[in-house]
Amino acid sequence: MDYLQPKKEDKFSFGLWTVGNPGRDPFGEPTRLPISPVQIVKRLSELGAYGVNFHDNDLVPIDATAAEQDKIVREFKQALNDYGIVVPMATTNLFSDPAFKDGAFTSNDPRVRLYALQKTMRAMDLGAEVGAKIYVFWGGREGAEVDAAKDACDAIKWFREALDFLCEYSLSQGYGYRFALEAKPNEPRGDIYFPSTGAYLGFIETLEHADMVGVNPEVGHEQMAGLNFYHVVAQALEAGKLFHIDLNDQKGPRFDQDLRFGSEGIKNLFFLVKLLEEKGYEGPRHFDAHAYRSEDEEGVWDFAAGCMRNYLIFKEKARRFREDKDIQSLLAEIHATDPSFSAEPIKFTKERAQQIKNLNLDRIELAKKKLPYEKLDQLVIDLLLGVR
Amino acid sequence: MDYLQPKKEDKFSFGLWTVGNPGRDPFGEPTRLPISPVQIVKRLSELGAYGVNFHDNDLVPIDATAAEQDKIVREFKQALNDYGIVVPMATTNLFSDPAFKDGAFTSNDPRVRLYALQKTMRAMDLGAEVGAKIYVFWGGREGAEVDAAKDACDAIKWFREALDFLCEYSLSQGYGYRFALEAKPNEPRGDIYFPSTGAYLGFIETLEHADMVGVNPEVGHEQMAGLNFYHVVAQALEAGKLFHIDLNDQKGPRFDQDLRFGSEGIKNLFFLVKLLEEKGYEGPRHFDAHAYRSEDEEGVWDFAAGCMRNYLIFKEKARRFREDKDIQSLLAEIHATDPSFSAEPIKFTKERAQQIKNLNLDRIELAKKKLPYEKLDQLVIDLLLGVR
Amino acid sequence: MDYLQPKKEDKFSFGLWTVGNPGRDPFGEPTRLPISPVQIVKRLSELGAYGVNFHDNDLVPIDATAAEQDKIVREFKQALNDYGIVVPMATTNLFSDPAFKDGAFTSNDPRVRLYALQKTMRAMDLGAEVGAKIYVFWGGREGAEVDAAKDACDAIKWFREALDFLCEYSLSQGYGYRFALEAKPNEPRGDIYFPSTGAYLGFIETLEHADMVGVNPEVGHEQMAGLNFYHVVAQALEAGKLFHIDLNDQKGPRFDQDLRFGSEGIKNLFFLVKLLEEKGYEGPRHFDAHAYRSEDEEGVWDFAAGCMRNYLIFKEKARRFREDKDIQSLLAEIHATDPSFSAEPIKFTKERAQQIKNLNLDRIELAKKKLPYEKLDQLVIDLLLGVR
Amino acid sequence: MDYLQPKKEDKFSFGLWTVGNPGRDPFGEPTRLPISPVQIVKRLSELGAYGVNFHDNDLVPIDATAAEQDKIVREFKQALNDYGIVVPMATTNLFSDPAFKDGAFTSNDPRVRLYALQKTMRAMDLGAEVGAKIYVFWGGREGAEVDAAKDACDAIKWFREALDFLCEYSLSQGYGYRFALEAKPNEPRGDIYFPSTGAYLGFIETLEHADMVGVNPEVGHEQMAGLNFYHVVAQALEAGKLFHIDLNDQKGPRFDQDLRFGSEGIKNLFFLVKLLEEKGYEGPRHFDAHAYRSEDEEGVWDFAAGCMRNYLIFKEKARRFREDKDIQSLLAEIHATDPSFSAEPIKFTKERAQQIKNLNLDRIELAKKKLPYEKLDQLVIDLLLGVR
Repeated sequence: MDYLQPKKEDKFSFGLWTVGNPGRDPFGEPTRLPISPVQIVKRLSELGAYGVNFHDNDLVPIDATAAEQDKIVREFKQALNDYGIVVPMATTNLFSDPAFKDGAFTSNDPRVRLYALQKTMRAMDLGAEVGAKIYVFWGGREGAEVDAAKDACDAIKWFREALDFLCEYSLSQGYGYRFALEAKPNEPRGDIYFPSTGAYLGFIETLEHADMVGVNPEVGHEQMAGLNFYHVVAQALEAGKLFHIDLNDQKGPRFDQDLRFGSEGIKNLFFLVKLLEEKGYEGPRHFDAHAYRSEDEEGVWDFAAGCMRNYLIFKEKARRFREDKDIQSLLAEIHATDPSFSAEPIKFTKERAQQIKNLNLDRIELAKKKLPYEKLDQLVIDLLLGVR
Repeated sequence: MDYLQPKKEDKFSFGLWTVGNPGRDPFGEPTRLPISPVQIVKRLSELGAYGVNFHDNDLVPIDATAAEQDKIVREFKQALNDYGIVVPMATTNLFSDPAFKDGAFTSNDPRVRLYALQKTMRAMDLGAEVGAKIYVFWGGREGAEVDAAKDACDAIKWFREALDFLCEYSLSQGYGYRFALEAKPNEPRGDIYFPSTGAYLGFIETLEHADMVGVNPEVGHEQMAGLNFYHVVAQALEAGKLFHIDLNDQKGPRFDQDLRFGSEGIKNLFFLVKLLEEKGYEGPRHFDAHAYRSEDEEGVWDFAAGCMRNYLIFKEKARRFREDKDIQSLLAEIHATDPSFSAEPIKFTKERAQQIKNLNLDRIELAKKKLPYEKLDQLVIDLLLGVR
Repeated sequence: MDYLQPKKEDKFSFGLWTVGNPGRDPFGEPTRLPISPVQIVKRLSELGAYGVNFHDNDLVPIDATAAEQDKIVREFKQALNDYGIVVPMATTNLFSDPAFKDGAFTSNDPRVRLYALQKTMRAMDLGAEVGAKIYVFWGGREGAEVDAAKDACDAIKWFREALDFLCEYSLSQGYGYRFALEAKPNEPRGDIYFPSTGAYLGFIETLEHADMVGVNPEVGHEQMAGLNFYHVVAQALEAGKLFHIDLNDQKGPRFDQDLRFGSEGIKNLFFLVKLLEEKGYEGPRHFDAHAYRSEDEEGVWDFAAGCMRNYLIFKEKARRFREDKDIQSLLAEIHATDPSFSAEPIKFTKERAQQIKNLNLDRIELAKKKLPYEKLDQLVIDLLLGVR
Repeated sequence: MDYLQPKKEDKFSFGLWTVGNPGRDPFGEPTRLPISPVQIVKRLSELGAYGVNFHDNDLVPIDATAAEQDKIVREFKQALNDYGIVVPMATTNLFSDPAFKDGAFTSNDPRVRLYALQKTMRAMDLGAEVGAKIYVFWGGREGAEVDAAKDACDAIKWFREALDFLCEYSLSQGYGYRFALEAKPNEPRGDIYFPSTGAYLGFIETLEHADMVGVNPEVGHEQMAGLNFYHVVAQALEAGKLFHIDLNDQKGPRFDQDLRFGSEGIKNLFFLVKLLEEKGYEGPRHFDAHAYRSEDEEGVWDFAAGCMRNYLIFKEKARRFREDKDIQSLLAEIHATDPSFSAEPIKFTKERAQQIKNLNLDRIELAKKKLPYEKLDQLVIDLLLGVR
């Protein structure tokens, strides 16, 4: 089954922090040793990925000297070159250090806000150095447990200020970054300020450089709020704002699981892949997930291979969906209508409005329209389960 | 306690469908008789409300003749006049009739989309006739259980088409409506297309008349997705898009409960009221809720009185919060910082950026900032529970 | 694919209320006409089901006269006979009528509690008349929105009293019923008293006739609480308490969806079917679900066929799982251990305890045990998606 | 307000791991230094607590030598004595060490199961040495992400085997322990085997020494499944199985928050305290929570004080509830009924059954029973908010 072999043109990417995840969780110590960035680049290349992404401190420790940073970056770039891997996206870690305990761009403390700007500019420099063109912002600490302590409107303003500033910084440096904002409803904060991709879509329009800012939806983050991820991504894509995507899996509203893509939400993720492949999404297919804590390093690579494999399985099933005669004829039946009404009410004119107001539409008749969705959905299930 | 007496200037409003809810649910038959619109207007006035809202068919049955409609509207207007009640908002029922079984503006059937436009224009005429200036859109059926059957991008386009059309209609008629879009994640559809207020904030910016369109967040709808309602409303308000609000209560992710405002989410709703009162929201305080199914009509009015009472209790507590010396001095301590850093990084210049990159900020030091949020939150709990 | 053809020995059953569901929901009117019980029996038989179940009022209207009841039951029995359909289970509707607005067996009103007993005894008579041997109790109204109004301990006692009474009634009549208690966390009540199958397993042990009482877990009801349904059923089965099962599907914590079995939770329901087939569950496979509201009657039968089809697909995949060499060898590797430790610590003796306390077990070594669960789970995904 | 001062007889206890929590989370490093057990005992005593609890490794590091353990325990006992603090409960850490990466009592590896028994026996010895009489089991790792890897029925059997063994161990040593099982639906495992207190109530009855085993419900753990904690605890208490309780707070289905008791779920926790105080619960009121990550050590003690304060506020409000004339007269009205029907149907006889079957009960009449629950609930809200 050749279609299951990942290829560079599939644009699969992983973060250093994903395959490098050491298996620590809130109740347990690490179960795996770190894997060096160079080793990650090598193995990802062998598995068929095209890209690797990182937070500044995934690559360069927060307390590295300039000389250490130079050495790390040099070796990393050599590995990228050796193994034909690109860095499509970079981002900043604004959540691990205790300095960010109450937020970064939305900290009540202006010193922390400045530090977050400083750290991000430096991380943008680093990302640019390795060719990243997408810059992700996940505001993991930009939230609150105690709403008395922080005015949510102030937090939004501060966040806007930071993004406006950083857009200018990117432009002034000629980095060519497009910014991708990543939402999450909660964890590690009790509540995070922009809890869903939709919230960011609204926020972006209030920015000075709205054109260079889009979103980076993550499967599990939207599912933590019980949302239909296919719907969420469709909105972003239709608005021209899908700049990046984080693929993983999740079992509904609970802690952030970052499961292997396609291991749980089979039907919804099939529609997601179908959407990405059919609606012209050209960005990376980034897996923001990690292996079960019970795995060793070999299991980590099983995990990575599984993410890509499931994407390709869904892609192939989307192709079959388009070519399946039963499905397509059912869809044609569903979309058929009285030809005298099929014209779209595209443009308002007073006459058109009056004409529509006067139309003789019988609601009893309209309600009789046959919609064999059980049959259609079962054909999809059959397709997914390989029984047709 | 005079402050607990609702007054017209509090701008409390109820929908005909809220106090008129007959106590039917998915597993049970109605427990209450309908209350006539005229009687509702009378009782709401006595209780201190200022406004009443309706879906077209709350007032005029879907199969009423023109003569019947005239009579109903005439009597209703008389009651509004008699009891000094206004109609701040109107809306369309695009969900009860089987014709809308697969959506209204997003139905796959263009005839249904036309019928939805027709029905909405007529309902806008009706709302305008009684003076409504806000027009709410809750797309209860605009969603899907079977994503194979409908392209979510098409659905979004159709919804946009409808809103663009209806904005023009309002303008052409000189109705002066502002549109308020109301999100909900699911129920009655498996998933609804714009599942959160954030999603609508993003969508609005893609409309031709974005300026005349805002949102109508509902407490329970956002809580069904586990979101912090205070945060949700703060974003809408800060963006100038809070055109209306639906107040009720809900116990987290489950069926839509529409509980008496303030009966469950005490702390979060306190911050909501504080926000509305302090940030210049001037619109109606609309209660979109209903009495428990076990109540009789007297219980319905207990319910309505309770909604308003709780709002006023929270409003008074917000006042005390502002005047509480312990709370205010704690907040001053929290917001205090090194004065040399207090300037906001408001505007980007290359020099400012370089200066920030060079700032000597010690993350160890930053992490030591004292944030007595447990103490502050406990003061709020004390305030809410009446023990300070 | 003959294995996809339902047969009587598969023991598939449907409730009259499931295929008979008229498509009403909290926001919409019915979209389908009722189907007569006789017609349901006929069509279920044609589709391959073996059984039909009912609430008393699904078959006999609540206000039927004795003569009407006789006629209905006579015709129904004739249909059962004509089409070779059995009634494995019966139950009582203790939730639709406004009399039960605050509960049935747990109503604060002793008259309502007596009425619930009366109605249940009569319904048990009816069930026995058509041969039912399982009697289900779903306490849809046994809950509260206002905990001030009812002492939860009283509610539990009243519920126990009712069940103890009705066990005796069944015994005294020689009906041979086994009772199956069905949990649900909420809806239509704000909270229902026994919110999960686990809660009923605990409660059963406090009954006088615990042996004749078990559980009837429903997929969607447990998923509304975010629980792993395979785990839930495993506990009931292992305890000898799985007397009946309600199969459907659900998209996590939200309103009760009653979706076509296997249409959403593919992996979890595969493990469920594997469990039922491999651990000796011999009861009915009952589908407590209904067609999408947008379907007509033909769609209802598509829905019913799809439920059975998906069960049979999972059953076949469970067979392949057992015969898959890669899966089985991986499982063997996972379960392999140092043979000197393989003895189970089955029985306590002082010596055994001391020996275990003294064992030289190196936690560093234990942590190294290889657990290739990513690989195993991906093999399952491959099996489910038909790519192996 | 003297009633807000914690006293020994209030039986407030904290775990070493609660106030000792260093502020680490899945996305961030620790923000606080450890506090020594002796210092914790001292401060808890000063704040008014009566007890302190611990996991074995909270007190004695997992790699301590026997001599180190002796010294630690000696100093700890001295502190208990000096500050008049007791150890009502002890427990085992069977989740942090990588050896338990796939479970402890339910590990697929028999060596790990033996190690878990060994570690628990040693921890029971330690607990007994400091006088603990309650022994808690929280099976944090007893779950799965990959159901293919472990038969859930096997897992249950292994867990039973361990508990049966350990009951015998306690008896043989004369420790006098009562075991309290603590449920949680998920986190750190994808799903945990006994996901709710109800599941444990069912499981307990299958144990050899069921009498010595009860439950330890935790507020947040049940709320993660959306359950009504007051209902959950009422069931345990009514069954005589409430052996311990873990008090904290949580904002619904999401990651485990362990918030300050009473800081979120105000109404539900009021009914909980009312239940504990009025139904004869005599065990510890244990707070299993921790301070926000943004706090320093002083904030930790603010947090601890707040937990106890909120319990006492609710306790006082429960007293006022009992003495509130309006509330009590409303309750009397609600519970009033036709005196001819007030007799409880306590005991089954054939005659009683026949009599009930023949009772002339008019469902229309029953439905008319007035249930002013909106009014009652509002009185409770008024009481909670301090406006009556």
